[in-house]
Amino acid sequence: MLSKIEIPPRISPYPMQVVLVGATVNDKPNFLTAAWMNRLNGSPPLWGVAIGKKQYTLEGIKEHQVFSINIPSADLVEKVDYCGIVSGRNADKSKLFNIFYGKLTNAPMIGECPLAVECKVFDIVDLPSTALVLGEIVAAHTEERFLTDGKIDPLKANPFVLTMPDNSYWTLGDRLADAFQVGKRLKHDSMSD
Amino acid sequence: MLSKIEIPPRISPYPMQVVLVGATVNDKPNFLTAAWMNRLNGSPPLWGVAIGKKQYTLEGIKEHQVFSINIPSADLVEKVDYCGIVSGRNADKSKLFNIFYGKLTNAPMIGECPLAVECKVFDIVDLPSTALVLGEIVAAHTEERFLTDGKIDPLKANPFVLTMPDNSYWTLGDRLADAFQVGKRLKHDSMSD
Repeated sequence: MLSKIEIPPRISPYPMQVVLVGATVNDKPNFLTAAWMNRLNGSPPLWGVAIGKKQYTLEGIKEHQVFSINIPSADLVEKVDYCGIVSGRNADKSKLFNIFYGKLTNAPMIGECPLAVECKVFDIVDLPSTALVLGEIVAAHTEERFLTDGKIDPLKANPFVLTMPDNSYWTLGDRLADAFQVGKRLKHDSMSD
Repeated sequence: MLSKIEIPPRISPYPMQVVLVGATVNDKPNFLTAAWMNRLNGSPPLWGVAIGKKQYTLEGIKEHQVFSINIPSADLVEKVDYCGIVSGRNADKSKLFNIFYGKLTNAPMIGECPLAVECKVFDIVDLPSTALVLGEIVAAHTEERFLTDGKIDPLKANPFVLTMPDNSYWTLGDRLADAFQVGKRLKHDSMSD
């Protein structure tokens, strides 16, 4: 009945968020583009990012036990992509952005990003090829112009996402539905069954 | 210079992928909508999903040590939202979808989803309010009609994403740029500096 086929299991979910991870590495701010990132716990607020074990940025995170996660807007796509294909070992990325600091001395944040959070390391989970860095958010920084009713407005923040292996960045499309609302119709349907 | 303001740190990154986690719970297929999910390791292929500790689905994952992750298309938004607001403790979700199985007896997958992966539990990381379930992908299932050149085509698979706290689902928008390519321009610029 179902015409399912198998594809190789080494695949990516889609679409993935694109973020820049900031850290102080060898006394200099450095930024790594990452897509294996998400919120993982509500209270305390923990975000987790999986970083290749040999990544330069990971050295700085381990040394200082703090880092930042910055969510870029679509107009930054060229710089964001650059930070994913060029290592801080070979290039100085500290001049790419307007850097600012909040509460943590060694968590450089990107002024151009509509949202930047500074984190202290909550734990690092050792996985076979990555380090899953769990960060507890110490403070979150944005600007009034990205808010509507005090909340980040996705249309103003204008994020982009990544799909693989077609290797594409995409903007947000149409607003499809109200989350935690649209499904209530089915709840009422089943109650009347 | 920068007009940054602080917002409360209990926030979500954006936009988040929306998936359905499938498991056998009390001998019945059940599906939970989750957004705190991502790829976390390349080889072996590990995806991780953070699930509230009291979620019904988690009981089935722990019992059978297998589960599925299903990436829905936008036309399923109503059912997907329903699976996020109604617990399997109170409603039978086993009739919502065409269910199929692959290699694992207790990892029910959703026929309507363009991509479904079946996973065995690699590890469960105990976080303060969630269980981070790490799944090793045993097999990935799709259909020819969602592929272009043998790869999942995002325009055909038509996924959607979630933003919070504005609580919106969004479709994919325009293709913004080539990933791992568009940033090379800056590489050449800096080399010529």
